[in-house]
Amino acid sequence: MVKLSPCFLQGILERLDAGEIVIGDGGFVFALEKRGYVKAGPWTPEATVEHPEAVRQLHREFLRAGSNVLQTFTFYASEDKLENRGNYVAEKISCQKVNEAACDIAREVANEGDALVAGGVSQTPSYLSCKDKSEVKAAFRKQLEVFMKKNVDFLIAEYFEHVEEAVWAVEVLKESGKPVAATMCIGPEGDMHGVPPGQCAVQLVKAGASIVGVNCHFDPDTSLETVKLMKEGLQAAKLKAHLMSQPLAFHTPDCGKQGFIDLPEFPFGLEPRIVTRWDIQKYARKAYDLGIRFIGGCCGFEPYHIRAIAEELAPERGFLPEASEKHGSWGDNLSMHTKPWVRARARREYWENLKPASGRPYCPSMSKPDGWGVTKGARELMQQKEATTEQQLKELFQKQKF
Amino acid sequence: MVKLSPCFLQGILERLDAGEIVIGDGGFVFALEKRGYVKAGPWTPEATVEHPEAVRQLHREFLRAGSNVLQTFTFYASEDKLENRGNYVAEKISCQKVNEAACDIAREVANEGDALVAGGVSQTPSYLSCKDKSEVKAAFRKQLEVFMKKNVDFLIAEYFEHVEEAVWAVEVLKESGKPVAATMCIGPEGDMHGVPPGQCAVQLVKAGASIVGVNCHFDPDTSLETVKLMKEGLQAAKLKAHLMSQPLAFHTPDCGKQGFIDLPEFPFGLEPRIVTRWDIQKYARKAYDLGIRFIGGCCGFEPYHIRAIAEELAPERGFLPEASEKHGSWGDNLSMHTKPWVRARARREYWENLKPASGRPYCPSMSKPDGWGVTKGARELMQQKEATTEQQLKELFQKQKF
Amino acid sequence: MVKLSPCFLQGILERLDAGEIVIGDGGFVFALEKRGYVKAGPWTPEATVEHPEAVRQLHREFLRAGSNVLQTFTFYASEDKLENRGNYVAEKISCQKVNEAACDIAREVANEGDALVAGGVSQTPSYLSCKDKSEVKAAFRKQLEVFMKKNVDFLIAEYFEHVEEAVWAVEVLKESGKPVAATMCIGPEGDMHGVPPGQCAVQLVKAGASIVGVNCHFDPDTSLETVKLMKEGLQAAKLKAHLMSQPLAFHTPDCGKQGFIDLPEFPFGLEPRIVTRWDIQKYARKAYDLGIRFIGGCCGFEPYHIRAIAEELAPERGFLPEASEKHGSWGDNLSMHTKPWVRARARREYWENLKPASGRPYCPSMSKPDGWGVTKGARELMQQKEATTEQQLKELFQKQKF
Amino acid sequence: MVKLSPCFLQGILERLDAGEIVIGDGGFVFALEKRGYVKAGPWTPEATVEHPEAVRQLHREFLRAGSNVLQTFTFYASEDKLENRGNYVAEKISCQKVNEAACDIAREVANEGDALVAGGVSQTPSYLSCKDKSEVKAAFRKQLEVFMKKNVDFLIAEYFEHVEEAVWAVEVLKESGKPVAATMCIGPEGDMHGVPPGQCAVQLVKAGASIVGVNCHFDPDTSLETVKLMKEGLQAAKLKAHLMSQPLAFHTPDCGKQGFIDLPEFPFGLEPRIVTRWDIQKYARKAYDLGIRFIGGCCGFEPYHIRAIAEELAPERGFLPEASEKHGSWGDNLSMHTKPWVRARARREYWENLKPASGRPYCPSMSKPDGWGVTKGARELMQQKEATTEQQLKELFQKQKF
Repeated sequence: MVKLSPCFLQGILERLDAGEIVIGDGGFVFALEKRGYVKAGPWTPEATVEHPEAVRQLHREFLRAGSNVLQTFTFYASEDKLENRGNYVAEKISCQKVNEAACDIAREVANEGDALVAGGVSQTPSYLSCKDKSEVKAAFRKQLEVFMKKNVDFLIAEYFEHVEEAVWAVEVLKESGKPVAATMCIGPEGDMHGVPPGQCAVQLVKAGASIVGVNCHFDPDTSLETVKLMKEGLQAAKLKAHLMSQPLAFHTPDCGKQGFIDLPEFPFGLEPRIVTRWDIQKYARKAYDLGIRFIGGCCGFEPYHIRAIAEELAPERGFLPEASEKHGSWGDNLSMHTKPWVRARARREYWENLKPASGRPYCPSMSKPDGWGVTKGARELMQQKEATTEQQLKELFQKQKF
Repeated sequence: MVKLSPCFLQGILERLDAGEIVIGDGGFVFALEKRGYVKAGPWTPEATVEHPEAVRQLHREFLRAGSNVLQTFTFYASEDKLENRGNYVAEKISCQKVNEAACDIAREVANEGDALVAGGVSQTPSYLSCKDKSEVKAAFRKQLEVFMKKNVDFLIAEYFEHVEEAVWAVEVLKESGKPVAATMCIGPEGDMHGVPPGQCAVQLVKAGASIVGVNCHFDPDTSLETVKLMKEGLQAAKLKAHLMSQPLAFHTPDCGKQGFIDLPEFPFGLEPRIVTRWDIQKYARKAYDLGIRFIGGCCGFEPYHIRAIAEELAPERGFLPEASEKHGSWGDNLSMHTKPWVRARARREYWENLKPASGRPYCPSMSKPDGWGVTKGARELMQQKEATTEQQLKELFQKQKF
Repeated sequence: MVKLSPCFLQGILERLDAGEIVIGDGGFVFALEKRGYVKAGPWTPEATVEHPEAVRQLHREFLRAGSNVLQTFTFYASEDKLENRGNYVAEKISCQKVNEAACDIAREVANEGDALVAGGVSQTPSYLSCKDKSEVKAAFRKQLEVFMKKNVDFLIAEYFEHVEEAVWAVEVLKESGKPVAATMCIGPEGDMHGVPPGQCAVQLVKAGASIVGVNCHFDPDTSLETVKLMKEGLQAAKLKAHLMSQPLAFHTPDCGKQGFIDLPEFPFGLEPRIVTRWDIQKYARKAYDLGIRFIGGCCGFEPYHIRAIAEELAPERGFLPEASEKHGSWGDNLSMHTKPWVRARARREYWENLKPASGRPYCPSMSKPDGWGVTKGARELMQQKEATTEQQLKELFQKQKF
Repeated sequence: MVKLSPCFLQGILERLDAGEIVIGDGGFVFALEKRGYVKAGPWTPEATVEHPEAVRQLHREFLRAGSNVLQTFTFYASEDKLENRGNYVAEKISCQKVNEAACDIAREVANEGDALVAGGVSQTPSYLSCKDKSEVKAAFRKQLEVFMKKNVDFLIAEYFEHVEEAVWAVEVLKESGKPVAATMCIGPEGDMHGVPPGQCAVQLVKAGASIVGVNCHFDPDTSLETVKLMKEGLQAAKLKAHLMSQPLAFHTPDCGKQGFIDLPEFPFGLEPRIVTRWDIQKYARKAYDLGIRFIGGCCGFEPYHIRAIAEELAPERGFLPEASEKHGSWGDNLSMHTKPWVRARARREYWENLKPASGRPYCPSMSKPDGWGVTKGARELMQQKEATTEQQLKELFQKQKF
């Protein structure tokens, strides 16, 4: 069934309106952190200027895996964020240069295939530090100017914890006249101000988003639950929009309202939670059945996870991605293995039902998010930012019960 | 402490003899499988010809992470293996071209820094199908010719399950006059014919290897146990050699004599077993304390795992790798995080003691290797290769008790 | 603090009205199954006639552990149930004899201390097979006659899955003029017909119950959640009643609407789920804080679990149970152990924070209830009772995916 | 197949010599601790005097479950031990009275069936505090006098960590002329002075024991491994003796040389480790296949575990125990359950293959014994008995890394 994908000439909305499945890309900051080009903590994308070859190669892998959309690597690339984290950047690199380089690299690789380029903005420190609407909008507008100059195909406002800020972002992006997608990093409990997912979706669509959904912070199952609530909210409001999901590639059944950031394993001990390609096939099927047609991933999604989406939905789409030249469906290339018991794994039933072990008998299967594990006293003190020295923190941790 | 590493002009033995720590690279076939360039099952390296940019980028990431040795991507690149798996290769690519391209790419990237290039051979189908010594040696010699033409810095015979074949490989490689390292993919129980690790080491050194150790098949702890047995064997025989370890980056306390291949999760469900960077720091320290000075990794090792070796041993070496520009020691860059409970993770004590959860409450922590889980009847039948149809396998699996 | 409990002369309502904590007893059918006197499956109490010494001893242990109420061992002792399971009973024993013996034994032991005797009825096969109200009520009335003759102190209608039947039971028991308690074996999702816990509580109080709550089927945490919903339902309806909880002594976070019966471990593989005495202390505290004053247990509760309730609430009650003569609070008697690291366990902080391991690395931490694990086809077939032969079941299980 | 067991009139050696399977009893101190009659820590058996009815009932349950031997409840009933722990005993009870009462109760219940009574001695504080041989022997002799006066059927020296003391015990018991069995609480690593199991067995047989084996401290699998080493030691020494095993009913794959006492869950958090009846059936079969004919249990063994031994070996013995009247083989009485998916559990295949979940997703599956988890400094300090105050211990625990 390996064949080249048909030439897509249309834009994102034409594709979705025609009922096509659009496959997103995976998570840049986590993948490039492991490859050595992004710093955990600030998570800023100065690699577009410092190491363009590394960013280009990752785009290429996602394209090859089946991505129809390449997002510019402009996560956290607003001027206020880059300045805020400036001391981490080896040499001072301007916000404009980072955004421009991101657009150029994405377009270069997109042209190697048939992908669209999407310019992206995300939540800003300005909003979190209570700057006013015009100041926050100015930050988005600065990035938008680059996206317009570089003529990206459409725009995504992603990774918003507060629908208010997301709406402001959509309003700015709509000024461009290009199609706008908007995803929030929220779970079924809603945004950080308590707005439920259904209402978030309604506000975003009313602000001008043609595509809405979630990204990051929660695992595939939880994210789909959230998108389902968005869908129901839109239906109740008699609004129409395309649905989109780009969840984590980590299992996080145990996280609270703020998602995986509060898990004790974030960000340097998440390995045992990484999802398999088979988990992703289940996710892709479930997303499709729910009516989602823009299906991708966020933190943790490596190229092979994106390929798993493309393979699962190959029957509906009629073609496989290029990278499937190196991957047999459901492990069927194991049929040539020398050992018969490994050959016996060359079947869908085997991988679909495997319950993979962690090899970690001294570790639990679930954790309590810090919001629970930290005693109330310690938590309050820490929130008052009074406990900033290591000594104070140690004492707090010694006092509390785990 | 970030500074450039000193210029290394000497060869591998000069470095080791001088007491330097030499950091190896990570696992190519697993990393490139996830990136979409290697097929699981055959695991052959035709990507050196098909997608040189992908191979080059991975070499570069390892170099940046601290690798002092870049191994040519010539795993399973003997002529008999490539032919054997020929039907998997999209277009027929000659053994010579694959090996030459591998040397060229490794040298190109090595020259970007100060790394050595090591040409590598691994076990052959010829040996497994009981071809005689001269035929097996001929296969190694064919690869060696390329390594000599391309003038690699030294040679590694790696991934041998039988010491007899490993000895033959060392004998061929020694014909070159270049230093030879030899690693076997065995555990504490010894090679597949029952030769214990200590005796394997003795035979390899007598055959001419200057560096001996293990690679692949077992997790860091088990691998170090095996190298310890090799060290003791050499001491008992009053032989001297440098020690080397390149284990898996998967936790495999539950595997049997043949290592992770027999685990039910191999190769497509190993995610929950992936080790963290902190696990690797412990491994690097333990390896160092055991007297091992050539320390690297095999399947599962990504660039950030190699960086963890370099960071752990930075006090001994006096410098950090380039990629540490994007990584604070023991998570210290989390100290800038907005949430105080995430800031509280910016300390060694936290990460060193974390017991990371899998987020998989329906999965066990250990598995039984297929050698146990398969009933004796089914196993025998499968080994007789009588159960080759899917229907027969299904019936066998239904009959047996899990 | 060890002292004898004050002489209680009042009835159950006087005690509860005065704000006293009343401690219930534990689970008879599970404890006596393990001791060899009750058959799992039928779970009927013919042991009151066959082996009165065993029943007497268990009552005595609960009394000694702190129980203020001894329930007659009349679970499933309605005539229709005993007949229904008659083929399991070694010699035909009349319903009346079973109930009378149960009353006599409970009273005999209650008189050794200061406990009250409660006569109990539970759900009937008649209701499940859709017999009409009068027939179901007649079954309860038959048991009530014995309770009146033997003059129990009050009555409990317990283990009802349908509030309709529970209401009928309360109505019958109220005919006696004695105080009536009513507990349902439901979780937060409500009864098997979908009536939510709050409404169940309202109906039971309106029917005449002075005490309402839950027993069996769910673990302490889930049960308290359900009682909380009952409490809120009563408050909303401006009704007053005392609250009662008698949960399982098994951890069952993974069970569905019908509770632990659907878990694959029921009833012969529940061992790893057994709660510790420390879990029970947390339960007792939480129950107390929620306003529950009749606090006991159901299946899995052994005498030492009941003692843990009494020890946790000793500060409020002012006395310890007799059995605490053989138990130091929070393990303090370990302070005399010969090994210092065992002595170091003689403190509340240690036991309160222990995360006990299962010693079962090949087992998961959670299971899927059969309602999920069984394929839809197999489930339907089984429900149609067409698959009654072992052969048919085997085939169904082979076909389905686990 | 339920039938009464044949009348046994012969002694223990006649039975074993004739090839009969002899079933031991279970664990008294743990069972009676949970029932409220024994204090954890001292673990002394003053209940024989204080609460004879509770001891009698437990004997009766084991008899009914199939025990052919009732051991007098004289564990830790040597005079030095009772005095040592005297402050725990509510009223001063003489050593002689405890031992006499134990004999009387055991004989009374044994006469209800066909069981033998075995008088038992165990390791003494005198030995541990380095008293000399004559003093230690005097302690055993004091208990033996009671056993002779009460005319027990044979004698067991059990729960010895040092073979030297066990040999002294056997020598004393042999003075009686009665058959002597000897079991040590050791694992495959041997006794606390490093004597391997094989040598322990040889010394015990040479001292006069007719039956040797292990009891307590380790789970069934580990215990059988130890008995196997004993068997091999005897064979190598050309000595003959009957074999005996009475392991824990807890899974303890993670414990070290000193067994379950060093596990952090000992003794109040062992619940998740309790073995199922099906685990015991596997143990009984394995023990039988290994040639062991005296098969029983120790701490954690409840009556239903002993019944599981009797049921597993019923085909070899030709009869079931009395308690099987209340227990269908392999859960077959579930075939009458109302729900078809519970009926589907009425088969051997189901229970034999079940991997029971713990319902504890926040707990690990294995623990590190305190010997590992405690930092070297803390451990040394504690062993110097300098850290006896709670404050000191807390500080030590805070300093160390878990």
